[in-house]
Amino acid sequence: MSTRILAVNCNTDAAMTAAIAAIGQSAASEGTTVVGVTPAWGPASAEGYVESLVTAAAVMDAVASRTDAFDAVVMAGFGEHGREGMRQLIAQPVVDITEAAAFAACLLGHRFGVVTTVRSAIAGIHDSLMTMGVGDRCVSVRAADVHVSAIDADVARTADALEATGRAVIGDGADVLVLGCAGFAGLDTELGRRLGVPVVDGVAAAVRFAEDLIALGKRTSTIGPYAPRSSSKQWVGPPLGSLRLIT
Amino acid sequence: MSTRILAVNCNTDAAMTAAIAAIGQSAASEGTTVVGVTPAWGPASAEGYVESLVTAAAVMDAVASRTDAFDAVVMAGFGEHGREGMRQLIAQPVVDITEAAAFAACLLGHRFGVVTTVRSAIAGIHDSLMTMGVGDRCVSVRAADVHVSAIDADVARTADALEATGRAVIGDGADVLVLGCAGFAGLDTELGRRLGVPVVDGVAAAVRFAEDLIALGKRTSTIGPYAPRSSSKQWVGPPLGSLRLIT
Amino acid sequence: MSTRILAVNCNTDAAMTAAIAAIGQSAASEGTTVVGVTPAWGPASAEGYVESLVTAAAVMDAVASRTDAFDAVVMAGFGEHGREGMRQLIAQPVVDITEAAAFAACLLGHRFGVVTTVRSAIAGIHDSLMTMGVGDRCVSVRAADVHVSAIDADVARTADALEATGRAVIGDGADVLVLGCAGFAGLDTELGRRLGVPVVDGVAAAVRFAEDLIALGKRTSTIGPYAPRSSSKQWVGPPLGSLRLIT
Amino acid sequence: MSTRILAVNCNTDAAMTAAIAAIGQSAASEGTTVVGVTPAWGPASAEGYVESLVTAAAVMDAVASRTDAFDAVVMAGFGEHGREGMRQLIAQPVVDITEAAAFAACLLGHRFGVVTTVRSAIAGIHDSLMTMGVGDRCVSVRAADVHVSAIDADVARTADALEATGRAVIGDGADVLVLGCAGFAGLDTELGRRLGVPVVDGVAAAVRFAEDLIALGKRTSTIGPYAPRSSSKQWVGPPLGSLRLIT
Amino acid sequence: MSTRILAVNCNTDAAMTAAIAAIGQSAASEGTTVVGVTPAWGPASAEGYVESLVTAAAVMDAVASRTDAFDAVVMAGFGEHGREGMRQLIAQPVVDITEAAAFAACLLGHRFGVVTTVRSAIAGIHDSLMTMGVGDRCVSVRAADVHVSAIDADVARTADALEATGRAVIGDGADVLVLGCAGFAGLDTELGRRLGVPVVDGVAAAVRFAEDLIALGKRTSTIGPYAPRSSSKQWVGPPLGSLRLIT
Amino acid sequence: MSTRILAVNCNTDAAMTAAIAAIGQSAASEGTTVVGVTPAWGPASAEGYVESLVTAAAVMDAVASRTDAFDAVVMAGFGEHGREGMRQLIAQPVVDITEAAAFAACLLGHRFGVVTTVRSAIAGIHDSLMTMGVGDRCVSVRAADVHVSAIDADVARTADALEATGRAVIGDGADVLVLGCAGFAGLDTELGRRLGVPVVDGVAAAVRFAEDLIALGKRTSTIGPYAPRSSSKQWVGPPLGSLRLIT
Repeated sequence: MSTRILAVNCNTDAAMTAAIAAIGQSAASEGTTVVGVTPAWGPASAEGYVESLVTAAAVMDAVASRTDAFDAVVMAGFGEHGREGMRQLIAQPVVDITEAAAFAACLLGHRFGVVTTVRSAIAGIHDSLMTMGVGDRCVSVRAADVHVSAIDADVARTADALEATGRAVIGDGADVLVLGCAGFAGLDTELGRRLGVPVVDGVAAAVRFAEDLIALGKRTSTIGPYAPRSSSKQWVGPPLGSLRLIT
Repeated sequence: MSTRILAVNCNTDAAMTAAIAAIGQSAASEGTTVVGVTPAWGPASAEGYVESLVTAAAVMDAVASRTDAFDAVVMAGFGEHGREGMRQLIAQPVVDITEAAAFAACLLGHRFGVVTTVRSAIAGIHDSLMTMGVGDRCVSVRAADVHVSAIDADVARTADALEATGRAVIGDGADVLVLGCAGFAGLDTELGRRLGVPVVDGVAAAVRFAEDLIALGKRTSTIGPYAPRSSSKQWVGPPLGSLRLIT
Repeated sequence: MSTRILAVNCNTDAAMTAAIAAIGQSAASEGTTVVGVTPAWGPASAEGYVESLVTAAAVMDAVASRTDAFDAVVMAGFGEHGREGMRQLIAQPVVDITEAAAFAACLLGHRFGVVTTVRSAIAGIHDSLMTMGVGDRCVSVRAADVHVSAIDADVARTADALEATGRAVIGDGADVLVLGCAGFAGLDTELGRRLGVPVVDGVAAAVRFAEDLIALGKRTSTIGPYAPRSSSKQWVGPPLGSLRLIT
Repeated sequence: MSTRILAVNCNTDAAMTAAIAAIGQSAASEGTTVVGVTPAWGPASAEGYVESLVTAAAVMDAVASRTDAFDAVVMAGFGEHGREGMRQLIAQPVVDITEAAAFAACLLGHRFGVVTTVRSAIAGIHDSLMTMGVGDRCVSVRAADVHVSAIDADVARTADALEATGRAVIGDGADVLVLGCAGFAGLDTELGRRLGVPVVDGVAAAVRFAEDLIALGKRTSTIGPYAPRSSSKQWVGPPLGSLRLIT
Repeated sequence: MSTRILAVNCNTDAAMTAAIAAIGQSAASEGTTVVGVTPAWGPASAEGYVESLVTAAAVMDAVASRTDAFDAVVMAGFGEHGREGMRQLIAQPVVDITEAAAFAACLLGHRFGVVTTVRSAIAGIHDSLMTMGVGDRCVSVRAADVHVSAIDADVARTADALEATGRAVIGDGADVLVLGCAGFAGLDTELGRRLGVPVVDGVAAAVRFAEDLIALGKRTSTIGPYAPRSSSKQWVGPPLGSLRLIT
Repeated sequence: MSTRILAVNCNTDAAMTAAIAAIGQSAASEGTTVVGVTPAWGPASAEGYVESLVTAAAVMDAVASRTDAFDAVVMAGFGEHGREGMRQLIAQPVVDITEAAAFAACLLGHRFGVVTTVRSAIAGIHDSLMTMGVGDRCVSVRAADVHVSAIDADVARTADALEATGRAVIGDGADVLVLGCAGFAGLDTELGRRLGVPVVDGVAAAVRFAEDLIALGKRTSTIGPYAPRSSSKQWVGPPLGSLRLIT
């Protein structure tokens, strides 16, 4: 069986999309192709509420614009808005890396913590965990003070910053860590080695969970709030005029 | 003192914007001008997650595109996403009608309930009340089965539907009701008369609360997640390329 | 329109009542008269559970004893008991400064904190926020170690103590502060200037919110627990024998 | 060892006080004397917020006025305000019948429900359970539509009303019932027999728990909010001028 | 890569173990062998607290007694106790079907509900979801009144009972269902077809999630409460004397 | 009246059982006999999840094996699993020392904290308080780093460790302490003397509360999840084959 999963970056940085897709591909089963998707518009990095809310629309637009077939969508913006909209927009399974990371962390430890990029991103992550319903399992979200745009410029410094912040999160009571940015994808092994705890990369986990839902033949519920919008409802103007149902 | 408050509709229906502005104006103090704002793009009505998330971006775009001066923004989309982004986007006070209605209801009764339009809107309203932190005061959110587009077409039927749904919400334990759609603005008095309970219209309440914050000289905090984005951060493409700080 | 709002001090200190009324008046709209009310009996300052519960009865007694007309009551005891009783006692809108401050703070920041007088007052404030339903928005309540009776004696020391305590509350994660005592009324601007955050004075906010409820024509719900007591029910003895329905 | 426990009625009905004391005495161990206390002022029955808050002050006044020695106080007003104040007021252990009933119910079943008198009392009971911290164990509070003053007038009708309401509470998911009024004291056995579930009378439970705290040599903590008020603090006027520390 | 996953039944019914293993195998990826494990002792079916707590020990004993190699454990008792102990006992990943079903349901809908066997099992399921931290996503747990031992005896009746109960759970607000017994494994497709909602079988989901954790190279955290017991600690007597660390 | 209460140790250490029974006896009323029970198998000390879950089964087995008459069971394993099973297993009242200590602490202070033995025990205590429904009253659980087996070996060091840890818990906001291990029984007075706060020993409190339930004539509810198992249900093998209903 050949499976295609869209891994949608939340920002317009194509290099980050490529890195996300590569990590997702390396985590995927044989027969799965992970296709990176970069939104056509929006912020170059999402580190706070304005950007997060814009990415929600941009990511929906990017997926709604696809003309190729796909089996699932992985939303690769940690703590960003939008998963509920995507679940209403398309019929295929949707896995947000925030969800995947949190659920995997819950399977690996008693209380988890999140290491994210910058302070402005923390509040949105708390909101996302709260609406997801697992906020009580998360004891701490801390920022490593590494801007998304600087992650790759100096990987050694990034890893050091994650390590120091990870120790603080462990001090807060976490026994498992979650990487709080898709841009950190791939650093889980190194960080786990340094800290001696399981470290979860949401991109890898989300690709696996998406494969699972596909393999189990499950699709998003259509009897609740994720029921498709009526196709007769009107939109005004570009670029979101291209938003449409994919069934 | 002359005060200008933008009342931003969440959808592209200019007639609804005019109605919202009129209700807001009638609730306003002397010296306040309520200016209706219609997003340039987005859904003709917002009744679920896809539309709600798009309106968040469209409403920010609409406000970011203003070249006139204003003192506060009222976000006139009940239960819609976006208030956190707007607070980060602009320096002036921001009042979401969901917040205003909930807070006013808390001052008028012990437990409140919401009467909204259609079932697909309910989940987002619960999410909004939860992240606002007053979810436990709300005992029930029910839909009157009236599409936003049909509210004005048959006001008598709308009022009847609100009355019947309001009775059910009261049966759930509410002693005060909240109108769960900006399109219902102005029906609070009639509904209150029929049901014998206080009924809160969020548009009117939000205009008043916005005036209060202005009069008290308060602005949104800039030391937490609503601190302005760095102006050097990059955006790609129209129309959200026009998003910028207004200070 | 001429509006009269009773601002009821929770203690018997007439000088503090005068200060509260003055702050309330300065926050009020044109046409509003803020009338300070001092309970005839009770504690000279309320800084803990015994005093708080006595003030609840004394404040109700003070309002029940009024023979003049008024349009709303502002309860000017931060974190004190009694708002639910006052809502049942009178037909006019009631705004507790704890509520007003908390709601205004929620409109101005993401998480708020309270700076109060002495440690013995903290538990009651937490209880009040919890029953109000916004406890999760409050990250911290700290005491400045300033007795109510000492606030005015040395305003400079009071401001310094509030500043130091405010910094600690900000360190706890608050991005907006609430003044946790009516006696602090008027210090919000100075404290905001020193700390660079919005600081909310509940007295000022409550007067405004009370005006709003009056302007919007809303009264407390009478179908739930705030329905008036039957006038035939018996009371024994002074001074609470004077408690009666005002309608 | 001879032990004296004050069982303080929350209202001024001396006949009810006598009944409460009798039930408490019958539940007490040998060597314990249960002394009924009737407040000198306040409502003839407490069935809502105004009355509840007045009873809090009246009950503190009644205990503060005692000149005899006692070992503990049982507060016999179900769901009424005041236990935190009483704990600050006196050094001896304090047991509220709401607490005693809830804790006993938690030991006897998985989820409990409360059968109270009239609808106006329900909200205060929920508040009391919430601040006590066991709200999540309570699945339902329902009123039997029996006014406090009518309980004894027609015991058969009272028992029938409790039975019917108890069945509804069981239908809500309770497997143990709590009598939600001190005036119901003594009906637990009959009701338990009719419904086949454990029924807890808070007066009886509270007297036992008070004996336990005495026997174990425990007194209320004085390092937190129940630390005694400074005796130098001023009060104004009768009758609460008699409030003082009893140590 | 060849992967071996132990699917441990919670009861001593070997036929049910075989059915569980078969369902798990059919959900597994190529290269995975699902090995059914039956506890040597304990209840023939687990439908309440006594049985659930015994199965926790029996299942640990069964896994501790294995002398073969394995890569992960799936605990196939829905809502039963024990996952925390298993995580401490062995080094390999552990997935409880309750967790797997709940997390998968959260990815497929907005609010889920559980259809279980008999009423006596409901309380334990609520407890399990609460300690897991996703209790707020679950709107309802209802029993189909089908004893575990009767599931296979009349599959048609079982399916009919699940359908009727599933409709009630949907009426409670669920948009996705979870099969609340390992014995229901395999009925998810039929039930989903009848009800038009996603139905999650925890056995299938857990096998997939266990494969994911193995593929991602993750093991249970050893710095928190799942750190291995000291091997020097003493046990008394059979059969739990055989409990030991497997590393 | 002669009353017999079984105080069941959670581990196989007979000396600890004797100490528990002695403390329980000293707290008991005249006429009560506290009978220590040691499980026939299981861990020599319970300090984490594996051991806790095994003790749940072993303790049920120990009680099910009794052939003598008894009036109540006290479960003397702090934070250990099993109370729900015991309530289903037997008809007599069951009091877990975790419950008794928490409820007594709630009667003596505003927020309590727990001082337990070793870090591995903390998570289970939090779980136990959460399912009990009083988790929000507990501000902190800290370990004194004293293994259960070492408590008696050096009582002076144990007391010192408890004192230091108790101070930290008070610093976390507790105004009353709970001894988080049955092995600490009897140290409450000394610790209270040193720290100036009420310190609750769960064994003593549980014996008293068990006496109360007996005296009040209450038994565990049989209409909910604690309804007895059908005696026709099958078990396999020793030693739990001896589990049976005692009625």
